[in-house]
Amino acid sequence: MTGAVALPLTEPSLRFEASGDAVVERSVLANGLRILTEHVPGARSVTLGFWVPIGSRDERTGTDGGITAGSTHFLEHLLFKGTSNRSALDIAIAFDAVGGEHNAVTAKEYTCYYAKVRDLDVPMAVDVMVDMLANSLLSEVEFETERGVILDELAMGEDDPNTVCAEGLFARLFAGSALARPIGGTSADILVAARDAVWEHYRSGYSPRQLVVTAAGGVSHGQLRELIEAAVSSTAWADAPDAAPVSRRATMPEGPVRVDGGAHAIARPIEQCTLMLGLPGLAVTDPRRATLSVLNSVLGGGMSSRLFQDIRERRGLAYSVYSSAPSYSDQGAFVLAASCSPANAGEVADRLWEQFLLLADRGVDDQEIARAFGQLSGSAALALEDSDTRMTRLGRAELMTGEFLDLDATLARLAKVDRAQLAELATEIAAGTPVLTAVGAVGDDFARDRACSTSDRATTGAGHR
Amino acid sequence: MTGAVALPLTEPSLRFEASGDAVVERSVLANGLRILTEHVPGARSVTLGFWVPIGSRDERTGTDGGITAGSTHFLEHLLFKGTSNRSALDIAIAFDAVGGEHNAVTAKEYTCYYAKVRDLDVPMAVDVMVDMLANSLLSEVEFETERGVILDELAMGEDDPNTVCAEGLFARLFAGSALARPIGGTSADILVAARDAVWEHYRSGYSPRQLVVTAAGGVSHGQLRELIEAAVSSTAWADAPDAAPVSRRATMPEGPVRVDGGAHAIARPIEQCTLMLGLPGLAVTDPRRATLSVLNSVLGGGMSSRLFQDIRERRGLAYSVYSSAPSYSDQGAFVLAASCSPANAGEVADRLWEQFLLLADRGVDDQEIARAFGQLSGSAALALEDSDTRMTRLGRAELMTGEFLDLDATLARLAKVDRAQLAELATEIAAGTPVLTAVGAVGDDFARDRACSTSDRATTGAGHR
Repeated sequence: MTGAVALPLTEPSLRFEASGDAVVERSVLANGLRILTEHVPGARSVTLGFWVPIGSRDERTGTDGGITAGSTHFLEHLLFKGTSNRSALDIAIAFDAVGGEHNAVTAKEYTCYYAKVRDLDVPMAVDVMVDMLANSLLSEVEFETERGVILDELAMGEDDPNTVCAEGLFARLFAGSALARPIGGTSADILVAARDAVWEHYRSGYSPRQLVVTAAGGVSHGQLRELIEAAVSSTAWADAPDAAPVSRRATMPEGPVRVDGGAHAIARPIEQCTLMLGLPGLAVTDPRRATLSVLNSVLGGGMSSRLFQDIRERRGLAYSVYSSAPSYSDQGAFVLAASCSPANAGEVADRLWEQFLLLADRGVDDQEIARAFGQLSGSAALALEDSDTRMTRLGRAELMTGEFLDLDATLARLAKVDRAQLAELATEIAAGTPVLTAVGAVGDDFARDRACSTSDRATTGAGHR
Repeated sequence: MTGAVALPLTEPSLRFEASGDAVVERSVLANGLRILTEHVPGARSVTLGFWVPIGSRDERTGTDGGITAGSTHFLEHLLFKGTSNRSALDIAIAFDAVGGEHNAVTAKEYTCYYAKVRDLDVPMAVDVMVDMLANSLLSEVEFETERGVILDELAMGEDDPNTVCAEGLFARLFAGSALARPIGGTSADILVAARDAVWEHYRSGYSPRQLVVTAAGGVSHGQLRELIEAAVSSTAWADAPDAAPVSRRATMPEGPVRVDGGAHAIARPIEQCTLMLGLPGLAVTDPRRATLSVLNSVLGGGMSSRLFQDIRERRGLAYSVYSSAPSYSDQGAFVLAASCSPANAGEVADRLWEQFLLLADRGVDDQEIARAFGQLSGSAALALEDSDTRMTRLGRAELMTGEFLDLDATLARLAKVDRAQLAELATEIAAGTPVLTAVGAVGDDFARDRACSTSDRATTGAGHR
């Protein structure tokens, strides 16, 4: 099938056609830097991503030196604060003057600096972003100023019940692993972070063989490659030795993690109670990811999903209710979530668990499968109208899976999902240990009384790989 | 200029070309229903909007009967809950089965039901949405269930510092006017809302002469018109008498409002303090809107803006800092906002005020004007790649201004903005009464000590129209 293409790590050059007349090309430079583009006919804008496969998971915290938790996110901020060629204001002006978006995201397994600009502004964007990646100064003055900004960003997260709940859930679902830690670290981490440790993290981690550049929209692969080579040639990376790209993370799994199962509550004097019920899910490379997508769509993927219909439409217990299935290189999660009145928190938690067990015990019918396929295929087609989605798809393919799937190939995999596969996967996930996290004005009895924590289920993680 | 086209209320048919080979067409049906489309060559999806010019501002609350505050938003929810032809589940399934987005927004001056679907799913979307608009049942059972959902939605807003702060600000900036009330009403309003009053609001307000349908993307005007006429013919609206469309709101201003100036704090036991400093701004039809856009861009529109550079980059006092200029048919606001540590709230509030006064006292230089023009033109071009933006532009043109501006016409107006106009407008806005709202763990001294509330400024609104 032409729509699913393997991306061998050191293959110097690849070119293939994808659904909808798009053309995907990939180059691996001698220094290990990878460039992937998806040209979309007629597009006049480009989304660019500069990916480094370093996330909060790679902060080797500990007593033997190591890197302060939160350093990866701190570093991401500092890359906007000046290079040997540009001040922070120069960087801000460059993108503001053309009306482009320019930002970055730090995740558990990668950091991505991205920009969306009109096609004629691609040379500027490449020039500034290569400069940021290779030539940042991380000055002491900027470091201290940015410490305050990051503390404010963390405080904003502390005031967001969804952030607090997700972090509380992950701390138990991936207990003892680096995945359990919040991406930005804690305020205490940031208060003690030292510029030299972040500098060391930068110098050791950011290099051409770590970098993946992806671009989608009105972009020419040849032109982008030339722009990147020209920009790199005037940086400290110009003399980087020939090297193979770094191995994909999926080839170095951390192994099963411990699950601290059961219900727990994080008290907050707020109006709503936010609930997340999580179970171990699937790694990003798991061949059953398509099955999990269908399962997630049926349970909590839309307004016709079981959770929405039962908890919101039938019972009026919550405004927001949904499920999700985040995945990492060697682990994943399946999460049911709702926000409701604290008075209803016990009932909503029990309904979430009930709906999950129904899925595992009685399976899914063909009508639901057909509807899930319609939903996933329609929303995928709509999402691909945006070059952001295509840029991200290229990055995840290169960093996480080593395989590019176009829309047709994605749909082909979804179309093969059947009732037996769904039942088997739901049963397997149900054999994992559930964790229930509540954030809000709920008392100790909330955790004690929950069905999902008092059943006689296994109490160790199943290590779904 | 072809790029700025007036939309006479009763003109039965209009067609013109807009920037980028797009074609805009408009039909006014005999019953007063208006249909506007923007065909974008090559687009394969369509965003549809069904607009009714009724918002929270139109709830005539009071002792002489009137409509419960929050009824407009309550009604918006109920339109998803079943018609004489479809159950709530049927409506949900229709859109989920094709992977479309389908939702609605209630604002102060309008309600908009919208959908984004692939071009082949437009007939389904029109059929379901006309059914919702014309044939909803608002059943007693669904009404009671939805009351709980809406209370949860309001509670979510109560837990969001930005929502609380904006509502606190507007309550004083538009004091005594219907614009001051929160869009969704309060919990107390929703607890006493009666089904019959919401039903009356629906029957009296929703009719063909109130409705504006806008669509952008891969849409044919002729086909959409036929679909709408066919759908309407099987509803209670089939027999609607010939009628002119309802007048635009901008022709019936409420007049100047009272400003309860000064600083006030809303106590919340949370980590951050959210601040909004507001002044009377411009109505949506004001010819100086382009000037205000440039002023807003310079002050708080991007990473190179004055607020971002001073408060975040130079001083590290806040993660989030920006300005905005919301506008309504006869009133508007100019708002400076930041979130910071409560310990820094006083300083940040004073810096916001200082930066605003600098703008008014010393004006803007040509470099800043050029950069703002670049930012506004680039971001407008990028935004128009999304059919959502075009659908919304059509709706605002028809409902609010009576004039359609394409990208070229918008840029032409921005290009004419000069230093003198900016200085004059900044001075005029500065003559208004400022309101400062803080949400977070700040004490009474916060309000007492603020410069913006202790200066010898005028204490009544300037009524900028």
